[in-house]
Amino acid sequence: MKNNKMQAALNEARLAAKAGEVPVGAAIFLSDKLISSAHNETISRSMPDAHAEILAIRKACEVLGDWRLSDCELYVTLEPCAMCTGTIMLAKIKRLYFGAYDAQSGVCGGKIDITRENLFGSNLEVYGGICEKECSELLSDFFSNVRNK
Amino acid sequence: MKNNKMQAALNEARLAAKAGEVPVGAAIFLSDKLISSAHNETISRSMPDAHAEILAIRKACEVLGDWRLSDCELYVTLEPCAMCTGTIMLAKIKRLYFGAYDAQSGVCGGKIDITRENLFGSNLEVYGGICEKECSELLSDFFSNVRNK
Repeated sequence: MKNNKMQAALNEARLAAKAGEVPVGAAIFLSDKLISSAHNETISRSMPDAHAEILAIRKACEVLGDWRLSDCELYVTLEPCAMCTGTIMLAKIKRLYFGAYDAQSGVCGGKIDITRENLFGSNLEVYGGICEKECSELLSDFFSNVRNK
Repeated sequence: MKNNKMQAALNEARLAAKAGEVPVGAAIFLSDKLISSAHNETISRSMPDAHAEILAIRKACEVLGDWRLSDCELYVTLEPCAMCTGTIMLAKIKRLYFGAYDAQSGVCGGKIDITRENLFGSNLEVYGGICEKECSELLSDFFSNVRNK
């Protein structure tokens, strides 16, 4: 099933793939309005923290002039890692929707789940597996292309 | 006992306190040489991810021209949160030394421990409680001043 908000994140993930980056994209919505989107840029920026979620959160903070994104929803094509999940909780994001599960480094249920530990007093709502097939295939196609090169 | 490397992080933490920020400081060493240090700037930057560790890691990546800080040691006055611990592991830092434990949001043993979960294939070595009293007092003094104002 199509999910228009996840499609915004998927469009960003496709931009990452075109740039040779691992295709992960994120989009942030406030009252159903897209306020920020970004894709993984770890290679081009040569920064370990240039994940899609982090870049989208920074942009949203600039747009809103506030580091608290309390009423925002974040859509991301891959289950967030510890760094991104921590940032999502610190930014007080209300709801997280992710696509593919990450059994290796996901901390929202894929490998471990830190979202139920009440870290930072966060009450983040988490919904995984949104457009899962589309999000997963984008990643597996990317890695199979990398292996074939 | 004094620890010269943790003192570099403590000096940064004191700068944070002077600026009205929660006093947490971090310092990164490569072959016993200080290559980067930073303090918490969440308020002044209005960014949820402007923790001492993140800012110190970004500076170190710039200094070394590499996002992999594989042979580096990071000293920080407070046990890292999920965001910072994730970033420390992603940056492939070798050893983490922290001062005060954080029973509320620490994920290196204080509240939970995600450093033994083999996330990102990390083999981070973790040493807590370095100059613990000095690091803790800086934080408790800061918060008692805030309450008295």
